[in-house]
Amino acid sequence: MDNFNFYSPTQFVFGKEREGEAGTYVKKYGGSKVLIHYGGGSVVRSGLLDRVKDSLTKEGISFVELGGVMPNPRSGLVYQGIDICKKESVDFILALGGGSVIDSSKGIAAGSLYDGDFWDFYSGKLVEKALPIGVVLTIAAAGSEGSGDSVVTKEEGMLKRATSSDLLRPKFSILNPALTQTLPAYQTACGATDIMAHVFERYFTNTLEVEITDRLCEAVLLTMVKETPRVIADPNNYEARANIMWAGMVAHNGLVGVGRSQDWNSHSIEHELSALYDCAHGAGLAVIMPSWMEYVYKHNIMRFCQMATRVFGCQMNFENPEVTAVEGIKRFRSFLHSIGMPINFEELGAKEEDIPVLVDKLGLGDGKTGGFVSLTSEDVTKIYEIAAKAEI
Amino acid sequence: MDNFNFYSPTQFVFGKEREGEAGTYVKKYGGSKVLIHYGGGSVVRSGLLDRVKDSLTKEGISFVELGGVMPNPRSGLVYQGIDICKKESVDFILALGGGSVIDSSKGIAAGSLYDGDFWDFYSGKLVEKALPIGVVLTIAAAGSEGSGDSVVTKEEGMLKRATSSDLLRPKFSILNPALTQTLPAYQTACGATDIMAHVFERYFTNTLEVEITDRLCEAVLLTMVKETPRVIADPNNYEARANIMWAGMVAHNGLVGVGRSQDWNSHSIEHELSALYDCAHGAGLAVIMPSWMEYVYKHNIMRFCQMATRVFGCQMNFENPEVTAVEGIKRFRSFLHSIGMPINFEELGAKEEDIPVLVDKLGLGDGKTGGFVSLTSEDVTKIYEIAAKAEI
Repeated sequence: MDNFNFYSPTQFVFGKEREGEAGTYVKKYGGSKVLIHYGGGSVVRSGLLDRVKDSLTKEGISFVELGGVMPNPRSGLVYQGIDICKKESVDFILALGGGSVIDSSKGIAAGSLYDGDFWDFYSGKLVEKALPIGVVLTIAAAGSEGSGDSVVTKEEGMLKRATSSDLLRPKFSILNPALTQTLPAYQTACGATDIMAHVFERYFTNTLEVEITDRLCEAVLLTMVKETPRVIADPNNYEARANIMWAGMVAHNGLVGVGRSQDWNSHSIEHELSALYDCAHGAGLAVIMPSWMEYVYKHNIMRFCQMATRVFGCQMNFENPEVTAVEGIKRFRSFLHSIGMPINFEELGAKEEDIPVLVDKLGLGDGKTGGFVSLTSEDVTKIYEIAAKAEI
Repeated sequence: MDNFNFYSPTQFVFGKEREGEAGTYVKKYGGSKVLIHYGGGSVVRSGLLDRVKDSLTKEGISFVELGGVMPNPRSGLVYQGIDICKKESVDFILALGGGSVIDSSKGIAAGSLYDGDFWDFYSGKLVEKALPIGVVLTIAAAGSEGSGDSVVTKEEGMLKRATSSDLLRPKFSILNPALTQTLPAYQTACGATDIMAHVFERYFTNTLEVEITDRLCEAVLLTMVKETPRVIADPNNYEARANIMWAGMVAHNGLVGVGRSQDWNSHSIEHELSALYDCAHGAGLAVIMPSWMEYVYKHNIMRFCQMATRVFGCQMNFENPEVTAVEGIKRFRSFLHSIGMPINFEELGAKEEDIPVLVDKLGLGDGKTGGFVSLTSEDVTKIYEIAAKAEI
């Protein structure tokens, strides 16, 4: 096991009607002037925004608002948020939404206490200060509610880039599974795919003998395999929603990846798809991740056998383990298809002829990625090609 | 899933030689005058105490010392520690040891900022302030390095009582698995038993459909079943030690018990054994927990089947599930025996004729416990009786 630090100081506030406590927690963590940041109309229509405002008002906390976050959140709105925070002396940011809203909030939090361009933090500069952030989560997917990560897209060139800092970990995150019950099935499935992908990026490691993290990874994956079809069949299944929502946090606060090398190539390869086509990140992952698996599985057949048997219930073929490894990947893709995810370029709305553009934008040049298997531009091209034509 | 809060803000610093960073972390979390608290001579003989002192000195941090913590830590030493902290204006407590040292440190931390008797906090009073605590862990067992819990024994009447507060969660915990390599096999096995017991206390729940926490529980248990025999066979197996050490933290920082009712009757029933005989808590649990399982399994046979199949690899008997349930309990007891744990009163050094004393000290009177199955004094008597005579 590799040496590591694990730090997840967020106060998680989980369950029915907990959004009514938003004001209490903002106050507890020192907020007196809040920027409420959110996406589109659903937060307004559902009454969530009003309930949260009431909760702030009850605690004597004043606020300003900034809506309009889009999926794959844009830098333009982050700049607007920073302007507001500086002008209005905002001291706390409250994100109402899913990963895009939280990630946008993190950009604003870092940029508001910085004299330069916040994009610096998405270009390699370390965050040194940030406004405190609170979250009321409405989509189980990104895990941003429990992580220090943020991904923002710069409109100019549609550059999708990430930053990470413990300073961007939310002070508190309110997770009410009932708030996710109104999500369309497609978005629910995209979220589930993202959660599983967050685990797989950590599961495929070159570090030996990390049984505890392996088993924790499998705990989340097994939960997703059981619970996702239940919410697709019945969007109002609170218990299944609750299991998925908590699994989404556990998948990405760092716990299931400690002490081991990780991969993250599928995420990088996918980001170019959602940047170019503005498709949902989870949908892109459904197309890319099984294709990546098909391309790299020979690097460690036994690890794919472990996934196949422990997660997807395959019988181990002891005479020919490769059969089991391949069967596991097949079952993963079938599972994604069964919950309504696209599995190839056509279903996603991507075009095979764009592959050179995608590879070029990834910017590997003559270099290589790191991870489970180090990839060249040629490897990435082949993975996109598998993804373009994938079938059940 | 029940509503819950989950808050585990400790900075975990894991891996080889990390104790050399103790000074850095004490400084980071605001300590300038430290009480180093530890147990017996092993911390001195191994050179750990000196290495930690060097690390503090390097950061310009001054310190005082208090050794002598015994297993089942006593209130007498806590009072001494509080006196020292008050006289010497100590602002940070650094625990070097296992659960007993950490629990004693927590008592001192709470008592040092309180005008009354620290025992109040072990008699139901809520902790309102506490000195910050850091940990250098030397035994994987109690999970106190990641929890807000503390158990201390009052010499007068050998009363073993607990307190819990988020204020008692360590600011940082340094976990170097190599420090546990010198532990005798018996202590290693006691620790492993305690870790598994912490999970089982949460696993046996009356809350339905908490798949994610079930699976996380099983992740820890499966890890312990795999790794414990390896360290018993080879005490210097760093990888197995590492898996167990991290599993011990995950087992008890709260994560594997959220959203569900819990039990904790085995812990209460055991506490009377270790209080009366001063035996190791883990050894007492090895005697009590399988006996408790035998007594209560009919309350939910399917849950015991889940344990049997998912954790101990039993084949499910679909025609007669009770067979599987019983087989799982049998395998658990055999596992404990195989790692060198006592499984009945004689092996533990307890006496069957003391059962009325044990039951009386538990103090249920005509009342009942809570938990998975609510127990009367008569039930507890029967569990002690099963434990007295248990065999493989």
